Amino acid sequence: MLGNFNEILNAAVKHGGRKIAVAGAEGAAVLTALKIAKEKGIAEPVLVGNQKKIEKIAQDVNFDISGVLICNKEDETDAAEKAVEIVDNGEASALMKGKVSTPVLLKAVLNKKYNLRTGRLLSHVTLLELPEYHKLMIISDGGMVIYPTLEQKKEIIKNSIEVIHKLGIDRPKIAVLAAIEKVNPGMVETEDAQALAEMAKTGEFGDVILEGPLAMDVAMSREAAEIKGISSKVSGDPDILIVPNIACGNILAKSLIYLAKARIGGVIAGARKPVILLSRADNAETKLNSIALGVASS
Amino acid sequence: MLGNFNEILNAAVKHGGRKIAVAGAEGAAVLTALKIAKEKGIAEPVLVGNQKKIEKIAQDVNFDISGVLICNKEDETDAAEKAVEIVDNGEASALMKGKVSTPVLLKAVLNKKYNLRTGRLLSHVTLLELPEYHKLMIISDGGMVIYPTLEQKKEIIKNSIEVIHKLGIDRPKIAVLAAIEKVNPGMVETEDAQALAEMAKTGEFGDVILEGPLAMDVAMSREAAEIKGISSKVSGDPDILIVPNIACGNILAKSLIYLAKARIGGVIAGARKPVILLSRADNAETKLNSIALGVASS
Repeated sequence: MLGNFNEILNAAVKHGGRKIAVAGAEGAAVLTALKIAKEKGIAEPVLVGNQKKIEKIAQDVNFDISGVLICNKEDETDAAEKAVEIVDNGEASALMKGKVSTPVLLKAVLNKKYNLRTGRLLSHVTLLELPEYHKLMIISDGGMVIYPTLEQKKEIIKNSIEVIHKLGIDRPKIAVLAAIEKVNPGMVETEDAQALAEMAKTGEFGDVILEGPLAMDVAMSREAAEIKGISSKVSGDPDILIVPNIACGNILAKSLIYLAKARIGGVIAGARKPVILLSRADNAETKLNSIALGVASS
Repeated sequence: MLGNFNEILNAAVKHGGRKIAVAGAEGAAVLTALKIAKEKGIAEPVLVGNQKKIEKIAQDVNFDISGVLICNKEDETDAAEKAVEIVDNGEASALMKGKVSTPVLLKAVLNKKYNLRTGRLLSHVTLLELPEYHKLMIISDGGMVIYPTLEQKKEIIKNSIEVIHKLGIDRPKIAVLAAIEKVNPGMVETEDAQALAEMAKTGEFGDVILEGPLAMDVAMSREAAEIKGISSKVSGDPDILIVPNIACGNILAKSLIYLAKARIGGVIAGARKPVILLSRADNAETKLNSIALGVASS
């Protein structure tokens, strides 16, 4: 079981620096992150994109790419498809977004020509390590699906479970969050949470303990659950928090970085292989964590 | 300026323990909180409700109410209306919910017979003191309005401003949060945030600095704003965070209690006097903070 980001980083190093295919590698931020990942033995990049620009920028950021494989693809769509093809062929374990736009990259991931699509929705998984919590925890989806429907929440849950399984948690505890525990027809997230809890009972998600709707106090504190008179197996010990919408997940995860000293990493799940997508405002550590999480969950 | 909860508690004591009218005081949790508030000089209760039950429960929780004013009202609506009347008459500075149900209490607050209604929406204001943040911060609305419309968000902002003014912040910085800074027609919260920022420019909210849509990283960190190339006067220094919906605000505030060691207090604003509404799962400290905030913002 991987219990914190140091262990995830070490696991990536132990795997000998698995290959990741980078779509549109001609960017200073991306090449800087890859340089550090390579130096630390976390991942070996395969650089797809405009070769001349890649070589120029690599020099600018002091990244010696003499031993690194480069595929020259100057067109954005070509670069995206080539990177996907490399992952599909098994020549790389994970895909990473560089300068190509997110829609172009995801269209290539979902292209039937390749075998990366699973038929499931693509969703964003944020993994958090928190000083005030005893284990890693996923929040989803705070980065991809804006207002998920019940059907989409089902797939968001499945994608989160897949990632947590890769980290060695066989029977995850999942809280489907809302403002309250009582199902209220005026709050669609409470009805969805109840429906998802029903699905979990029928085995829809495999071997998991899923409860909802749960308010955040009950999810995080057994004492709060006791005071409220709620009998919960998830309370105080969730592996996965499912939020009602992207704004909620995004605001929550980012608040924990700045106000709760969270270390985080993120990855897009739902394809056969993880898609690493760094954000501009991520610090160097978060970027490395995301790359290592991509490798670890591949 | 009141910069933390100790100062708010001290201010309440300095005011000599202002009176609060409690609607339906016949509850052990409510009477326990009031007992401590009275002992500490934070507030003097006026107990409205079933006198016999109040006396019995007060004895059970060791609360000596020999010098406390009690109004015997056995009917729930009568108790709510009497407590509102007491506040309306100026005999108490704030209203507090006891055993009467929230809808019954709020109906009495909005009753035209009394002068507590302002014509504005009632909304919930959570005040937070965070070890990782340099001043008090409001999150709203995480407790009252489920999916606020643009018009309702306008009133939620006005109510938050009123509370922060009472704490001595004359020109609050307000972040209207979303997952991203770019206005996206597929994300109503980004459009609303833009509209609210436009309203702020016309002076709708008085002397404030209001920006939106802002992602939480930009709201909380100047560095994140710089990396993202966003010029913001609110970044790193907001007094008020406006969230898109109740689930988001509720999950955010509660997560900060359990994961960021936040001290919190809450109050319902929008009436002429604050309404104190404690939650069962609040710990004793949170209950006291809410009472003191009710007194301080009255």
